[in-house]
Amino acid sequence: MPAFVPQIPDGDNRERMVCADCGHVAYENPKIVVGSVVVSDSQVLLCRRAIEPRKGFWTLPAGYMELGETLQEGAAREALEEAGASIDIEGILGVFSIARIGQVQVIFRARFTEPARPAFAAGPESLEVGLFRWNEIPWDQLAFPSVHWALMAWHDVGAGALGAPAGNPSHDPRGVHRMAVSMASGSGESGL
Amino acid sequence: MPAFVPQIPDGDNRERMVCADCGHVAYENPKIVVGSVVVSDSQVLLCRRAIEPRKGFWTLPAGYMELGETLQEGAAREALEEAGASIDIEGILGVFSIARIGQVQVIFRARFTEPARPAFAAGPESLEVGLFRWNEIPWDQLAFPSVHWALMAWHDVGAGALGAPAGNPSHDPRGVHRMAVSMASGSGESGL
Repeated sequence: MPAFVPQIPDGDNRERMVCADCGHVAYENPKIVVGSVVVSDSQVLLCRRAIEPRKGFWTLPAGYMELGETLQEGAAREALEEAGASIDIEGILGVFSIARIGQVQVIFRARFTEPARPAFAAGPESLEVGLFRWNEIPWDQLAFPSVHWALMAWHDVGAGALGAPAGNPSHDPRGVHRMAVSMASGSGESGL
Repeated sequence: MPAFVPQIPDGDNRERMVCADCGHVAYENPKIVVGSVVVSDSQVLLCRRAIEPRKGFWTLPAGYMELGETLQEGAAREALEEAGASIDIEGILGVFSIARIGQVQVIFRARFTEPARPAFAAGPESLEVGLFRWNEIPWDQLAFPSVHWALMAWHDVGAGALGAPAGNPSHDPRGVHRMAVSMASGSGESGL
């Protein structure tokens, strides 16, 4: 069994988990979630989660970025894997820090590669996938606060030219940092 | 000694390194580099690297984001650690994918917290730190292509309102993906 012990490696300034046997440093860094608000004729593509956390709730096609891909490639891969959708990335809608769970989320605005025939289908991590008009979005069934933030960012810019990305809303501290128990109980943020 | 073997974990769709003893999955994901173009009176703060890679070359105050912090907090921490500079983050200048080395870089525009008295000093990872006017920037002594890209993004927007972040320039594929040997030899991208 590998035995990791907390140590400050040479040239570093904070404790990391270091293998007592071989000296391997298990650096743990924030992970990047990439996803998209995929728009078709003023409707947005949402996926109902087939997996925990937040199984049964609605989210954007999004997931962990993998080694070897760009942000845009990762977002396109997730749309294909989770929603069977071939998309073209337009630009960044929002960049969110979810420090409580060590995540950075980069959410793009995208369109279907064949806009005239928007094709989608539930992947293994989705129960169902659908296109929603703004007033049809299941607001009380969204999986994570950041889904809400990304949809608001899309609502603000619409089909117009993308400007500075939205960040964590100043009025909504959920997920940004570890919160007091009284506040944390209201948070459903756990990943995407 | 821990023995990691390539395996596809349950519910996953690609090979990861899995410990043959305990089943621990060593997920490897892209890392986030956060940094800033810190501007003072049309001058930009640059650091000459005291460490490899690219020791002796000039870079922006930037480094790996740590768990528990936001992007903005990470960028401010790096400016303090590498350049002894207390800064206020203004917004995102550029978001770059350096897939060849598994990095995403988020570079902000920032100003000194006390603009009237811009204080800075070389940290342990810097040989020297200085403020440079545009025509004084040591272009042929920059450490990484992304430093060049971020400085160009700053030049494009100047002190004006920040818009859509710059991305990897279409004319400069360095670092985006693993390149053919004939091209790779021209790349100095190795990290920040």
